[in-house]
Amino acid sequence: MSDKKRVYTFGNKKAEGKTSMKNLLGGKGANLAEMNLIGVPVPPGFTVTTEVCTEYNLLGEEKVRELLKKEVEAAVKQVETIMGTAFGSNENPLLVSVRSGARVSMPGMMDTVLNLGLNDAAVEGIAKKSGNPRFAWDSYRRFVQMYGDVVLGMSPESKEDIDPFEEIMEALQEEKGYKSDLDFTVDDFKVLVKQFKAAVKKRTGHSFPDDPWEQLWKAVMAVFDSWNTDRAVYYRTLNKIPGEWGTAVNVQAMVFGNMGQNSSTGVAFTRDAGTGENLFNGEYLIDAQGEDVVAGVRTPQQITLEGSKRWAVLANVSEDERVKSFPSLEERMPERYKELNAIQEQLEQHYSDMQDIEFTVQDGKLWLLQTRTGKRTGAAMVKIAVDMLNEGMIDEKEAIMRQEPEKLDELLHPVFSKEAIAQAEVQAKGLPASPGAATGQLVFFADEANKYENTILARIETSPEDLEGMNISKGILTAKGGMTSHAAVVARGMGKCCVSGAGSIKIDYKARTMMTDGKTYKEGDWISLNGSTGELYDGKLDTIDPEVGGDFAKIMELADKYARMYVRTNADTPHDSEAARNFGAKGIGLTRTEHMFFEGEKIVAMREMILAKDLKGREEALDRLLPIQRKDFEGIFEAMHDLPVTVRLLDPPLHEFVPHDEKGQAEMAKVMGVDVAVIKDKVESLHEFNPMLGHRGCRLGNTYPEITIMQTRAIIEAALNLKAKGVVAKPEIMIPLTGTLAEMKMQEDIVRETIAKIFEEKGNTIDHMVGTMIEIPRAALTADEIAKSAEFFSFGTNDLTQMAFGYSRDDTGVFMPVYLKKGILKNDPFEVLDQEGVGQLVKMAVKKGRKTRPNIKLGICGEHGGEPKSVEFCHRVGLDYVSCSPYRVPIARLAAAQATIKEAIAKAGKKKAKKKKNKNKKGKKKK
Amino acid sequence: MSDKKRVYTFGNKKAEGKTSMKNLLGGKGANLAEMNLIGVPVPPGFTVTTEVCTEYNLLGEEKVRELLKKEVEAAVKQVETIMGTAFGSNENPLLVSVRSGARVSMPGMMDTVLNLGLNDAAVEGIAKKSGNPRFAWDSYRRFVQMYGDVVLGMSPESKEDIDPFEEIMEALQEEKGYKSDLDFTVDDFKVLVKQFKAAVKKRTGHSFPDDPWEQLWKAVMAVFDSWNTDRAVYYRTLNKIPGEWGTAVNVQAMVFGNMGQNSSTGVAFTRDAGTGENLFNGEYLIDAQGEDVVAGVRTPQQITLEGSKRWAVLANVSEDERVKSFPSLEERMPERYKELNAIQEQLEQHYSDMQDIEFTVQDGKLWLLQTRTGKRTGAAMVKIAVDMLNEGMIDEKEAIMRQEPEKLDELLHPVFSKEAIAQAEVQAKGLPASPGAATGQLVFFADEANKYENTILARIETSPEDLEGMNISKGILTAKGGMTSHAAVVARGMGKCCVSGAGSIKIDYKARTMMTDGKTYKEGDWISLNGSTGELYDGKLDTIDPEVGGDFAKIMELADKYARMYVRTNADTPHDSEAARNFGAKGIGLTRTEHMFFEGEKIVAMREMILAKDLKGREEALDRLLPIQRKDFEGIFEAMHDLPVTVRLLDPPLHEFVPHDEKGQAEMAKVMGVDVAVIKDKVESLHEFNPMLGHRGCRLGNTYPEITIMQTRAIIEAALNLKAKGVVAKPEIMIPLTGTLAEMKMQEDIVRETIAKIFEEKGNTIDHMVGTMIEIPRAALTADEIAKSAEFFSFGTNDLTQMAFGYSRDDTGVFMPVYLKKGILKNDPFEVLDQEGVGQLVKMAVKKGRKTRPNIKLGICGEHGGEPKSVEFCHRVGLDYVSCSPYRVPIARLAAAQATIKEAIAKAGKKKAKKKKNKNKKGKKKK
Repeated sequence: MSDKKRVYTFGNKKAEGKTSMKNLLGGKGANLAEMNLIGVPVPPGFTVTTEVCTEYNLLGEEKVRELLKKEVEAAVKQVETIMGTAFGSNENPLLVSVRSGARVSMPGMMDTVLNLGLNDAAVEGIAKKSGNPRFAWDSYRRFVQMYGDVVLGMSPESKEDIDPFEEIMEALQEEKGYKSDLDFTVDDFKVLVKQFKAAVKKRTGHSFPDDPWEQLWKAVMAVFDSWNTDRAVYYRTLNKIPGEWGTAVNVQAMVFGNMGQNSSTGVAFTRDAGTGENLFNGEYLIDAQGEDVVAGVRTPQQITLEGSKRWAVLANVSEDERVKSFPSLEERMPERYKELNAIQEQLEQHYSDMQDIEFTVQDGKLWLLQTRTGKRTGAAMVKIAVDMLNEGMIDEKEAIMRQEPEKLDELLHPVFSKEAIAQAEVQAKGLPASPGAATGQLVFFADEANKYENTILARIETSPEDLEGMNISKGILTAKGGMTSHAAVVARGMGKCCVSGAGSIKIDYKARTMMTDGKTYKEGDWISLNGSTGELYDGKLDTIDPEVGGDFAKIMELADKYARMYVRTNADTPHDSEAARNFGAKGIGLTRTEHMFFEGEKIVAMREMILAKDLKGREEALDRLLPIQRKDFEGIFEAMHDLPVTVRLLDPPLHEFVPHDEKGQAEMAKVMGVDVAVIKDKVESLHEFNPMLGHRGCRLGNTYPEITIMQTRAIIEAALNLKAKGVVAKPEIMIPLTGTLAEMKMQEDIVRETIAKIFEEKGNTIDHMVGTMIEIPRAALTADEIAKSAEFFSFGTNDLTQMAFGYSRDDTGVFMPVYLKKGILKNDPFEVLDQEGVGQLVKMAVKKGRKTRPNIKLGICGEHGGEPKSVEFCHRVGLDYVSCSPYRVPIARLAAAQATIKEAIAKAGKKKAKKKKNKNKKGKKKK
Repeated sequence: MSDKKRVYTFGNKKAEGKTSMKNLLGGKGANLAEMNLIGVPVPPGFTVTTEVCTEYNLLGEEKVRELLKKEVEAAVKQVETIMGTAFGSNENPLLVSVRSGARVSMPGMMDTVLNLGLNDAAVEGIAKKSGNPRFAWDSYRRFVQMYGDVVLGMSPESKEDIDPFEEIMEALQEEKGYKSDLDFTVDDFKVLVKQFKAAVKKRTGHSFPDDPWEQLWKAVMAVFDSWNTDRAVYYRTLNKIPGEWGTAVNVQAMVFGNMGQNSSTGVAFTRDAGTGENLFNGEYLIDAQGEDVVAGVRTPQQITLEGSKRWAVLANVSEDERVKSFPSLEERMPERYKELNAIQEQLEQHYSDMQDIEFTVQDGKLWLLQTRTGKRTGAAMVKIAVDMLNEGMIDEKEAIMRQEPEKLDELLHPVFSKEAIAQAEVQAKGLPASPGAATGQLVFFADEANKYENTILARIETSPEDLEGMNISKGILTAKGGMTSHAAVVARGMGKCCVSGAGSIKIDYKARTMMTDGKTYKEGDWISLNGSTGELYDGKLDTIDPEVGGDFAKIMELADKYARMYVRTNADTPHDSEAARNFGAKGIGLTRTEHMFFEGEKIVAMREMILAKDLKGREEALDRLLPIQRKDFEGIFEAMHDLPVTVRLLDPPLHEFVPHDEKGQAEMAKVMGVDVAVIKDKVESLHEFNPMLGHRGCRLGNTYPEITIMQTRAIIEAALNLKAKGVVAKPEIMIPLTGTLAEMKMQEDIVRETIAKIFEEKGNTIDHMVGTMIEIPRAALTADEIAKSAEFFSFGTNDLTQMAFGYSRDDTGVFMPVYLKKGILKNDPFEVLDQEGVGQLVKMAVKKGRKTRPNIKLGICGEHGGEPKSVEFCHRVGLDYVSCSPYRVPIARLAAAQATIKEAIAKAGKKKAKKKKNKNKKGKKKK
């Protein structure tokens, strides 16, 4: 264990790592190495591997220090050599940054420490060497502050409080009557450092560590610790990132953007992360350090002139004022800008994808600190892929693989109608940080984001702690921060509407109010946000379905070109059917007939049927239901003309239909002309201890065959009626909850006999199929038997999951959150199909079903049919189609295409490996 | 299809069939053939195979008649030749009987027609030929009556009515002032035949068929029809006989026991079917035909002198009276008796088992009409097997295989204590038709046998229609009928207590009363029956556990000698543990800790734990529970010293423990010092929609680890306390409801950490294991994973069945009866393990578990562990043990032995077949 390599160095255009080593070095570390290799100027440093994070969790700090000691010391030595400084020296100290870096970028999740290596002696060395004591002491107070926050846990005491160090700074600023932190003097910084350290001592009981090595080790361990904070775990759960991946730690020589007016620091995107437009853009600050730009403490300036002008319009800043106070980097440092622009082009070409970069200009020299694939909105994702395809940067398959299926969802969300916007009153304007439309009630704290059903989270600025609340709320509004602020970056990653840096609003956390120019809003007031324009409106605005054309249509067309499986929809109404058809559904995979029974006169007849005292009474009520249900089916079949429609026979327990309240029972008693006590008794007799496992599904149809007969009649007569009108209906009758062949066969017989009778009555026929849902574990286990009767299987993975796990979906609320948090479950199995367990049942049923009936039609109609990972699984096990809710049809189409491509890539890889192996064999033979 | 052999003839000591062809010919047909082959006198006839029954169900009457015509005609011709008569002749007619005969004997289930072939012309031919017109006309009226009942459906109109033909006879008897049916004259019989036929015409609208061939065909089809009557289906369900077996039809030349004083008919057993005593016994009647003896119309006489004397004592008949009115066959027809005795010995030797035979003496010549393996009580089953083993008739394995495990149950049922019997008042005395003790409330109709929880069914005589009611009631009492009456035979088959022929009681169906000499009982009155003495007592008598020694112990000893698996018990108390140990349990397979919580102070502490508002509150309540639970475990461990005890941690949903009534909630509020509303809220918050699939099992232990810690502590501390006293406890801690490895591992870690802590505290250790129940389908599917953590698996097949089928055990009442009746399910899967579906999960888990952990301990603790077919399955898949309730331990031991022997036989068979095949190959090669 101890002789494996744990530390990888980089610097001076050399590196031990490269981009393809992301799993070991984390994204940041791998890219820092790669930038060195392609000649981009990067401060030297080293990366501690992600494997050490796992070792840390297993073995603890002491053992890990021991394992790392030699390699880290050698790596520090190498950095010292390149920089010509010495770590721990008082005269010529090496300062470093310590940053986390997991395999996939987790913005704002992990903690960063800058300027590490400073203490009361070293700061003087820096002051002397740089000839800039203010810079030295500013760096020192920043270090103490950051180290205090991140490593020593100096968080605000309550959610209404601010950072304890900020509090000290604000007090001094007030005492001195300063306007901003730019007014602090060297002496002020000295006071601040003293006060900061005292605060640390008071809160933690320990002195602030002065030994640079101690500082370094503690910071490395703090990065590892931050992998397991609640918010990191939450982010991973949200993004389905395994906990065992771990994070790497990057230690890098400091370069300083805060060395004066010839220094700056910034972040930039090679294309627009919100819209996908092919425009280099970003923000920077003069004489500032790293986090300043993102944190939104000062108003950041734009990098390009064009961007700067656009910003001025949105921010209501005159051209004079812009040039004077907010010039672009292109204007302020034209040479550095040219250099930066060349590098961003080089990086995008090199990585063939939009890049999110960080840079620092130290005293006129440009350094790149990071490059990574940029987070983007769903719209940008689609546009960038299609543009790059057109530009010849990527091919069709790559364009498909570049899509995150879940993100397409954003494009399908409602937007404000033009009329609504025209009439709306704009209360404030901020930056269009993340597009979309959001309407909700105001809250000011992330942990209160679920206080109302729809909330807008308004914050002065957001921080990593707010992640969960940001995800729950419908939209995010910040008073401070730019297009690259935490709020903006995270919101775009979530595809969530965000307006950032709306400077005209004033938020008072203690009073829980927000003031715009014209109005004061209280918590709970309704507002609307337009993330595409940065506008904030009063009250609720109307929304409409978005148009799905252009680049989106192009991607969908490509998806269908490559996908092996096709996509159906789950729809119970003509309206839903049409919507799904527009989204590209190739039929209906599940029509739930029970939903139809809940409207008006239908529910009365349904209740009469259930409450009838005998067969005769049931049949009379069913006779009344028949024409109504037939009409329902006509509507759906017409909307889905020429495409197959799977209709599931009555499934839920009957007690769901009967009235449980006295009024409803009295009504039914009147309608049926019986005593209310009779109705009450019957309703009570329908009570079940575990209705999920009770008298439902085909158990209803087998105990009350008359229900199956009526429904079959409604379906087939509807299809024949349409045939007479020249409309082709393709009904597939689905028996629910089958557990044994005998159960299925008995239903099949009833259905087929009924159909034969109708055909004879009408002197006409219609193509049709009879099949079943596979949703009972026993059905999957005996699928070879059941396939003797069923012409198709549709996997009902909701119920299959319930029964395979023994989880009642309605009752997991108590333990599921604990299970996810403790890592007992990686995903909620009702969201992501459990391939290990439930998946075995699906695989088994596919194999057994095909063995008995090679041409059996196989699909899935559980909610997993619209979840990308589950769709991929369905492809792998060989289903013919997936079926999902209308709005998820495009997601499923894309996921199906990706699954096909992925499989082809894997196969090609295997073939290549085999060839190589064979070649080696041959080679050996020749020898 | 049409050229297969459907009819097998026998007669004149030749036969086309033999005993081993039971599946094809039915038991009766196969034995009739065999008796011919071994030289027993049997009237000639033929058998229509069971396969034709299946064809009949598929193809219908017409087609089957066509398929059979040629063969039946040829067979009839052969019988004519042997008998020297002609079917359909008016002068010298052949009369036949038509009887059903399935693979296994179904006493009284199928219908029989005697004297078929008679009509107004043929009866005169018989009268002339026999010179006995009374016999001829008696036979004719019997035929019309039987044929009317069985083939033409002339059943009583209501349950209070008697047979319509009996009614006609009774009316005539009364009109003529006759004492019994023996007084009828030839002319009376002529009148009866006319009136019978008129009644048939009136009820059915059709004339009685006069054509003998038509009579025959209709009778054959009626036998097939009777295979699917409700009562036949019920019997099959009860005895787990597949519906597809079908019944054969036996057509046989009539011989007549009603030809006068030199004729008789009877039934006999080669040993005592009630006690197993090696005594030839049976009953007969002079001048009577077939059904008379069994139907109990006349008081039957005993076959042996010894039997006759015993009977007289029980029936309170003086020796003079006995000799005069009820002489034994041994006295009445000594030569025939000798012949019969020789044949019964021959048959028992030939079949190596106790035989139930039917015979007829026609005018001095003895004919055997049937032999079959005799039904017997559990006690007789055990005694006969042990006796035959001692007699050298069978070997040890055969003695084991002769046991029906379920029947052992009878021997373990409580019996009346000697004290209770000494004090009881004997109200009436009948025949000890089937041993056992029964106490219940009187009912007079079989379909009311479930009117009270415990019922005694009292009937004048029973009939096949009463089967279901007989099974439900605790005991059966009849006023008429002997030891071979329907009631007696069926009750012995069911192992149900029965007193038959209690002549002193008078039952009035209309008034629903029963009169004994001293008292009139109404419906609902309590009485007690002693089936071993034939006594009827007033009121309820105390019962005690039976002694299990002697022959029973011998069989158990043999079982343990041959069984591969061992048997544990499910027990939650020291008392149950001791009982099971006495029954041979080798440990406890399941101790449910939750049952312990329901007593006294425990439930209060338990409720405090559940209702506590936080961890601290829970821990305080658990601290109070710890010593109580530890004491419980000490009791169980002590009772099971030196044997392993599997303790399952808390399993049921918490809401099962909390008070749902206001009073209980108020009490808890007081105890806990909180408002009752708080308690109410908490109780309501525990409500679940599907508690079976909710927050229970290890989901409790993983969300509230403190419960697992407390229970582990109680178990291990109890074991250590006993160790200090020199008692060896072997705890096996079982995690319930595991579905994933992570779930199991988390519990295992808690348990092992707790144990390590206790060992350190006490400075002492104890051997122990940590394993899990496999009861969630997903656990079976991923058993290879779970075995990484679990040292043993115990299959919880109750829950596994619930989840694999999606059946809530508490809610199957609505559809399960329908499913069993319609044949959708062959067995209730909660009674007999579903090998096809659930069994796959068990097999899979065994295989996967052993793959990961070759020495994993495997058992079953679901209720199937005491069900013989399921035990056999457990043996086959390779479990180490089964665990069942204490009273089923002997049944499981026996079933385990039978499974081992069966497997060895099957293996030997395969080996033999292989050898034969190889030999054939060799032979071929030589050629």
